[in-house]
Amino acid sequence: MRQAGRHLPEYCALRRRASSFLDFCYTPELAVEASLQPVRRYRLDAAIVFSDILVIPDALGQRVWFEQGTGPKLEPVLTGGEIDRLNPNRLTERLQPVYETVAGVRAELPAGTALIGFAGAPWTIATYMIEGGTSRDHERARALAYRAPRVVERLIEILTAAVVEHLLAQIRAGAEAVQIFDSWAGALPATLRERHSLRPIAEIAARIGEACPEVPVIAFPRGVGGAYADYAALAGIAAVSIDQTVDPRWAAAAVQPHAAVQGNLDPVLLAAGGRAMDEAVDGILAALGGGPFVFNLGHGVVPDTPPAHVETLIARVKGNAA
Amino acid sequence: MRQAGRHLPEYCALRRRASSFLDFCYTPELAVEASLQPVRRYRLDAAIVFSDILVIPDALGQRVWFEQGTGPKLEPVLTGGEIDRLNPNRLTERLQPVYETVAGVRAELPAGTALIGFAGAPWTIATYMIEGGTSRDHERARALAYRAPRVVERLIEILTAAVVEHLLAQIRAGAEAVQIFDSWAGALPATLRERHSLRPIAEIAARIGEACPEVPVIAFPRGVGGAYADYAALAGIAAVSIDQTVDPRWAAAAVQPHAAVQGNLDPVLLAAGGRAMDEAVDGILAALGGGPFVFNLGHGVVPDTPPAHVETLIARVKGNAA
Repeated sequence: MRQAGRHLPEYCALRRRASSFLDFCYTPELAVEASLQPVRRYRLDAAIVFSDILVIPDALGQRVWFEQGTGPKLEPVLTGGEIDRLNPNRLTERLQPVYETVAGVRAELPAGTALIGFAGAPWTIATYMIEGGTSRDHERARALAYRAPRVVERLIEILTAAVVEHLLAQIRAGAEAVQIFDSWAGALPATLRERHSLRPIAEIAARIGEACPEVPVIAFPRGVGGAYADYAALAGIAAVSIDQTVDPRWAAAAVQPHAAVQGNLDPVLLAAGGRAMDEAVDGILAALGGGPFVFNLGHGVVPDTPPAHVETLIARVKGNAA
Repeated sequence: MRQAGRHLPEYCALRRRASSFLDFCYTPELAVEASLQPVRRYRLDAAIVFSDILVIPDALGQRVWFEQGTGPKLEPVLTGGEIDRLNPNRLTERLQPVYETVAGVRAELPAGTALIGFAGAPWTIATYMIEGGTSRDHERARALAYRAPRVVERLIEILTAAVVEHLLAQIRAGAEAVQIFDSWAGALPATLRERHSLRPIAEIAARIGEACPEVPVIAFPRGVGGAYADYAALAGIAAVSIDQTVDPRWAAAAVQPHAAVQGNLDPVLLAAGGRAMDEAVDGILAALGGGPFVFNLGHGVVPDTPPAHVETLIARVKGNAA
């Protein structure tokens, strides 16, 4: 999960040096520093490159901008004609600053600290591209998937190819594992989950596996409940991140036999801290610690998280694991 | 699911006769008519009383209002002191117009058409009361549940008692089944689901079952994924509504052995219509039609749904069942 961010005062200071959030992501000097800040402060086992899932639509030529307080905005792409105007040919050229960031972070990281690259999953990126931003129920994206299935399938195909290219370029630059964030997989009805989430993620994993069999691929289909097991069973998926709504005992039984599990402390509980957090951490470790497991949050760190809580958490996890 | 609403022109005309949405709910003449409109138009097998889950906080004395386009607003209740000021003593007195509506609908309905009463589940009502409205991720409600567990437990207790009273009064007025909408159960981390969703729903079902053993209790813990089976296994739960993210074949195997299943066509697909809708309807019927089953949507009808699509849907379901 994203470790950098507004809960760190040093991040807030760094953020002020860029005029826009995308400029921040595209300035390797700043993005390298943002990637390293949490590792330096918390001595984490792994770093994740500081970037954003919306660099892909931006690199495809869709207009993307970030407004303070309201999240990302995009000029919606709704028709076959609009999708045909997306230009995948210059993707890795335009995303060169991300790969420079990956290389820069790798050069600065201690040898034993793994570096994770990432991308949004095709469906999740598509929801932003169709909705023109974030959305509570993704009705516009679902409606387009029903009303113009070929348009959405074409968009998912373009994004699948773009995600593969983007992840491979991050691997070439030094990423040692890659994570696919399908943050809005849970918005898909069961009837579309196979086509728009499972299948593209399987294809991405297969193509990464062919090119770089040594690189673990982690899938995070947030909010899919019982279907997490289906993602874990995909060939080429080494690990699955689970959100906090999943009972870790269920994940130990249904997910862990197929793939390593990452998760799943509620980030809001990390912000709250205290005994309830300690108990939840112990519960997760007890349920999942017997198999392949990476302790993680169920989603990204929330802005009002005191760094002291993160330190307490890490000490507890390392103490338990020892 | 709510059948009345903005997709019906006759509803929009009726809505204009009340100055506010709560006045609309509290004027039996209008609420009876809103309840009957979809039954009259579509000849449905069951009617659901037209009301809102937020009548309970309103009747407890919290300030609740509806703003055009932004949904409900409430003056948040965040402390033990604020919760102690809620007044449950006049609940059924203040909600008398709802019970008059139930009686009025029952009097007008054909004898063979069942009437369903409903309430929000304690957790779902609590999220609105704490957040001061609707929310995307319910971080404030979760944070309070972690930081002040006794405050939230006390609120859930008050709401559990209120929901029981409100449902029993609807049954006395003529409701023949009751549905509990836990629309935000899916926002609960697994560690809090038992305490704030399963347990209060079990208690409500048990208390309805003691007083009125002949009245089926339907639970709709929206978005809980694999945990739907846990709700179906509760004593006193006759049926479980499933949302559209649930694979109906999974529900047939895991939910239907314990309880009847209601669901689960994506309302956005009903709005889209066409062959994709027909195929989805057939898939749901094939998966669930062999056991106790009520065809339904996965959530409420969306405003841009053409009534002709609802008619096509009903004809298909009735044709298949025949």
